[in-house]
Amino acid sequence: MPRRLPVATYIEGIRAGDRAVLSRAITVVESTLESDRSLTVEILNGLPRWTASSFRLGITGVPGVGKSTFIDRFGMHVLERGHRVAVLAVDPSSSLTRGSILGDKTRMEDLVRAPEAFVRPSPARGSLGGVTRSTREAILLCEAAGYDFIVVETVGVGQSEIAVHSMVDFFLLLMLAGAGDELQGIKKGIMEMADGIAINKADGDNQIRAREARTEYQKALHLFPPSKSGWQAQVVTCSGLKGEGIPELYAMLMDYRERMRGNEWGASKRQRQALQWMHETVRSSIEARFYADTRVKAELPAMEARVVAGEIAPTLAANDLIRLYLQREKKD
Amino acid sequence: MPRRLPVATYIEGIRAGDRAVLSRAITVVESTLESDRSLTVEILNGLPRWTASSFRLGITGVPGVGKSTFIDRFGMHVLERGHRVAVLAVDPSSSLTRGSILGDKTRMEDLVRAPEAFVRPSPARGSLGGVTRSTREAILLCEAAGYDFIVVETVGVGQSEIAVHSMVDFFLLLMLAGAGDELQGIKKGIMEMADGIAINKADGDNQIRAREARTEYQKALHLFPPSKSGWQAQVVTCSGLKGEGIPELYAMLMDYRERMRGNEWGASKRQRQALQWMHETVRSSIEARFYADTRVKAELPAMEARVVAGEIAPTLAANDLIRLYLQREKKD
Repeated sequence: MPRRLPVATYIEGIRAGDRAVLSRAITVVESTLESDRSLTVEILNGLPRWTASSFRLGITGVPGVGKSTFIDRFGMHVLERGHRVAVLAVDPSSSLTRGSILGDKTRMEDLVRAPEAFVRPSPARGSLGGVTRSTREAILLCEAAGYDFIVVETVGVGQSEIAVHSMVDFFLLLMLAGAGDELQGIKKGIMEMADGIAINKADGDNQIRAREARTEYQKALHLFPPSKSGWQAQVVTCSGLKGEGIPELYAMLMDYRERMRGNEWGASKRQRQALQWMHETVRSSIEARFYADTRVKAELPAMEARVVAGEIAPTLAANDLIRLYLQREKKD
Repeated sequence: MPRRLPVATYIEGIRAGDRAVLSRAITVVESTLESDRSLTVEILNGLPRWTASSFRLGITGVPGVGKSTFIDRFGMHVLERGHRVAVLAVDPSSSLTRGSILGDKTRMEDLVRAPEAFVRPSPARGSLGGVTRSTREAILLCEAAGYDFIVVETVGVGQSEIAVHSMVDFFLLLMLAGAGDELQGIKKGIMEMADGIAINKADGDNQIRAREARTEYQKALHLFPPSKSGWQAQVVTCSGLKGEGIPELYAMLMDYRERMRGNEWGASKRQRQALQWMHETVRSSIEARFYADTRVKAELPAMEARVVAGEIAPTLAANDLIRLYLQREKKD
């Protein structure tokens, strides 16, 4: 049994902006233990409902794109503009990508030392669904603790971008000016989700290539249908290392925010995200409950073997498992 | 209440290869009525378990690519090679694309008249999940009725390709030689799923462009990591109208089939698909049961309103709904 604090201690600590308590509360929301799930509900219940005053920025990019250095520099700029910054990670495959995504906190040297920032490494393990849930809850905790600029980062491993996109106000794609064909390195579906693209490492000899890449991406983005909000995704160049382009990027985000406030589709984005979150939580909860059922667990291996052997149609196998599950429910 | 036949009549009719009965049975599996779901289970229970001797071909392509003409001609070729051919459609958005996907059976003039073929237009309506389920079940019915070459077609509308990919042995992408940039018109994720690409309408003035497109696509495919089965997706040119390239395409499919038989990853593809099918059915069933619950239905609109208003965190709203649902379950 992990050591836990009393509920009131979490709630008071978070409301007071205590980073150590916030950190321990996030450990609770990351846990899949039944007791921790209950504790999470109690903590969330004790916090003020979230407000629209925060800004949530999602950042994705393949390993090597310079994400940590970029976030470090960008985060410091955001701090200087008067915000409190929290950095969270969605990294379902962290056993594979360990080290690439906040794995080493020291990769954000300045940010981890800043008193107005909170940097949380990615959860050590977990399914995408679990990590998505806990990251969403961690965002609420950070906002309740007074962080008003939330950065959620992920690596370009596919489904996790969709998850991050579903929980942020602005989804930024970090890219490099590559050699040769600019558009091959990235899944088109992810480009379609981006509200903006930043070509990083646009410094030194790389500047010309970065500007060329910028033109290429701008052309590519124009092929997508315009977003329902009317926002046209923009491409900027920047250098996390040198800090160049960072103020311009921040200005773009604030411009986006201002425009969305006066825009019905933009303003309701969080509402749609919140509904999606609720329904996803319902789905994953009832599914987890099903597969945790002792009779289902006992029968599942044999049923899977029959399906694999072609002895029973998958529809019928599912049907049998559900019947078994419902029998138990009625006996409760 | 729709008119239904006795269970035994469906089972005997399907086993005898009676197309009219098969068609009525597919209407049953397409239905979401509780009574029809039970009937589906009884019908499937009465049919022999499926065998590995059929070949399931998935075909996708945007409207205008000449899909119907292609399938008509290709299907006739397959018939001539001694197979019995069934054509099914996955088209969750059929209200939008009506007419584009078997909407008009006469677009497959030869195939619909052939006694050894069975052409089923897409279901009139339904969610992707529902259409996916019923198409999978329809495949089993067709195979039980003696059809050993199943074509499942879909339009290029996104998620439906993933569904079709999950139920076929070979996933074929039908393309056109476009003007200008060949790779812009198609989602990269879908190209990644393809086992083969056929550039259609490679006839008349279009032949040179089609060959150029072929080279382009071949280059693009080589950028993807090789499939676990070791199969490298191939690109062919063809003309549904003129019948050119059709025998070569058929030969490619048979070559694929032969190779997969001697290949562990290829041979177990259907087993993996069957397990996925079972788990998806479990998920959608328990989810449908949840949202059909009278107390959940009564409470949901108010809860959604509170979530949208930001009065309750989505996690807590989901939690409350699940508690409500479980109370009912226990009372049953």
